[in-house]
Amino acid sequence: MPVIQDYASIINRWIDEMEYPDRPEGLYEPIKYMLSGGGKRLRPTLLCASAVAQGSDIMQVRPQALGIEMFHNFTLLHDDVMDNADIRHGKPTVHRKWNVPTAILSGDTMLTMAGEYIRDCDPSIRGDVVDMFDRTAIEIYEGQQYDMNFETCDNVTIDMYIKMIRLKTAVLLGCACAIGTMLGGGNSIDCDNMYHYGEQMGLAFQLRDDYLDTFGNSDTFGKEIGGDILNDKKTWLRVKAGEMAPDEVTAMTAKYVGKAKIEAVSRLYRQLGVDKACIDVIGNYTARSIQYLDNVSMPDISRQYFKNLAMAAINREC
Amino acid sequence: MPVIQDYASIINRWIDEMEYPDRPEGLYEPIKYMLSGGGKRLRPTLLCASAVAQGSDIMQVRPQALGIEMFHNFTLLHDDVMDNADIRHGKPTVHRKWNVPTAILSGDTMLTMAGEYIRDCDPSIRGDVVDMFDRTAIEIYEGQQYDMNFETCDNVTIDMYIKMIRLKTAVLLGCACAIGTMLGGGNSIDCDNMYHYGEQMGLAFQLRDDYLDTFGNSDTFGKEIGGDILNDKKTWLRVKAGEMAPDEVTAMTAKYVGKAKIEAVSRLYRQLGVDKACIDVIGNYTARSIQYLDNVSMPDISRQYFKNLAMAAINREC
Repeated sequence: MPVIQDYASIINRWIDEMEYPDRPEGLYEPIKYMLSGGGKRLRPTLLCASAVAQGSDIMQVRPQALGIEMFHNFTLLHDDVMDNADIRHGKPTVHRKWNVPTAILSGDTMLTMAGEYIRDCDPSIRGDVVDMFDRTAIEIYEGQQYDMNFETCDNVTIDMYIKMIRLKTAVLLGCACAIGTMLGGGNSIDCDNMYHYGEQMGLAFQLRDDYLDTFGNSDTFGKEIGGDILNDKKTWLRVKAGEMAPDEVTAMTAKYVGKAKIEAVSRLYRQLGVDKACIDVIGNYTARSIQYLDNVSMPDISRQYFKNLAMAAINREC
Repeated sequence: MPVIQDYASIINRWIDEMEYPDRPEGLYEPIKYMLSGGGKRLRPTLLCASAVAQGSDIMQVRPQALGIEMFHNFTLLHDDVMDNADIRHGKPTVHRKWNVPTAILSGDTMLTMAGEYIRDCDPSIRGDVVDMFDRTAIEIYEGQQYDMNFETCDNVTIDMYIKMIRLKTAVLLGCACAIGTMLGGGNSIDCDNMYHYGEQMGLAFQLRDDYLDTFGNSDTFGKEIGGDILNDKKTWLRVKAGEMAPDEVTAMTAKYVGKAKIEAVSRLYRQLGVDKACIDVIGNYTARSIQYLDNVSMPDISRQYFKNLAMAAINREC
């Protein structure tokens, strides 16, 4: 079995080999820029590994691997416009390097291209593959809308938060696993279980992101620590702390600015124990994720691979 | 044979009957708002009429009619953001009524929903239908990119302009006709000819739009006359006048502002005869459009219907 790094380098090579029309100027350049920006290639890795676990050749799922990475990068591109973000993977975002119209239009193009890649498979399973993909896309838009609504909502609960990240982040990991399993010839029980493996892992993955943004190390995490606190972002830590000590959280986030705010709020989180609680919850989702693997027919070496993948994604420092 | 008004009212009823999830707040409301905003429903009308001409029942193509109108409205929604437009069909645009993030995300949702509608057809032709739809979508993005590039380009030629409106506007009319013909059971020759009928009509349709924006009557046209002149938009009239008298056009557009600019530039257009030249070109595209109908197997009454439709679209005052 190949390891995760192998899939990522294969996928990067596929991305490098993609060909685009030269014209019109300004439409395809941002797409190349976006796709070459790096990232873990986690979604196509899950898709490839899921297909290989069912006995498929990795070359067979190249279009769908590219399609899911293209789709993921489309969501990042449009999210960056919506969130007014300046930097992505250490480089200027597309709407900063070019402009907002270019970012919108290149993103639209990526969404249509992603769909073309996804449906480039055996007609006997194409309907199921495309259904899964489209349903997931709609869920992701809903998740992004909930995330934006949370900005002006003061009574976000942990349940609401988990529902939001399930839609915005986790379902795409589930979708990648399910599509890979379908393409590899897995039955519907295998697909369901692999979907839930990816979904639960996705929840843990996003919670780890929340954790690292406050308690990570900027050298390994690759971006400044404390951005979520500065922006009053409704992360798991913030929502949990808000449930435990609403007045203190409100007071603390209003009292300080800049570095002092990051220090004061993260100290409060530690006092309340939400840092440890977050690690516990991540562990729970990871454990649940791994349990689903037991119900999937695949070689033990594949099962171990997915287990390692979940553990690596969850223990990551970056 | 039903007349165009009949199709439009059927399509409007279908749009009214569409059901959306209630939540999340802010995602589906703009989609309903956008779709209920009016418009001629020309694309779904072409699709329905093309299917009916091949003997199909209109109910059979309801999903694709809704899909193509949903797609068209997605492009309008995102174009309005890109063009910073305030008003559409006499109402505030989505990004004005809500905000830019909402407009982007609701548009993305419409694009995915449109794809779901389009592929909801008999599996035996689904591949061809979706190929045609996706290819057209990519062409439309390319057309929009050319249109934006023209804003800062001083040497736009008539050929470049026609290529741009073919991509941005005409191919979707061709696509509507071709998909309708496929769904109705027409052969590939019928599909090709109906595609070209729609495409040539689309060119005439867009040129009529350019003409009316300068020489129309604001009472019937439904919006202020002269917007293109005020915004220095590279329309057919402007490009043609620029080819004939570049220095005068540059001087005239720089010398005046507001109402005086509209009057001076449209007077120049008349002196150069580009108003009449535009009408001639519209006539040529319309004639070519109608010629393609001769190569399509369909009842004469259908052929006459499409002929009337092209004439009506081209002679329209609104």
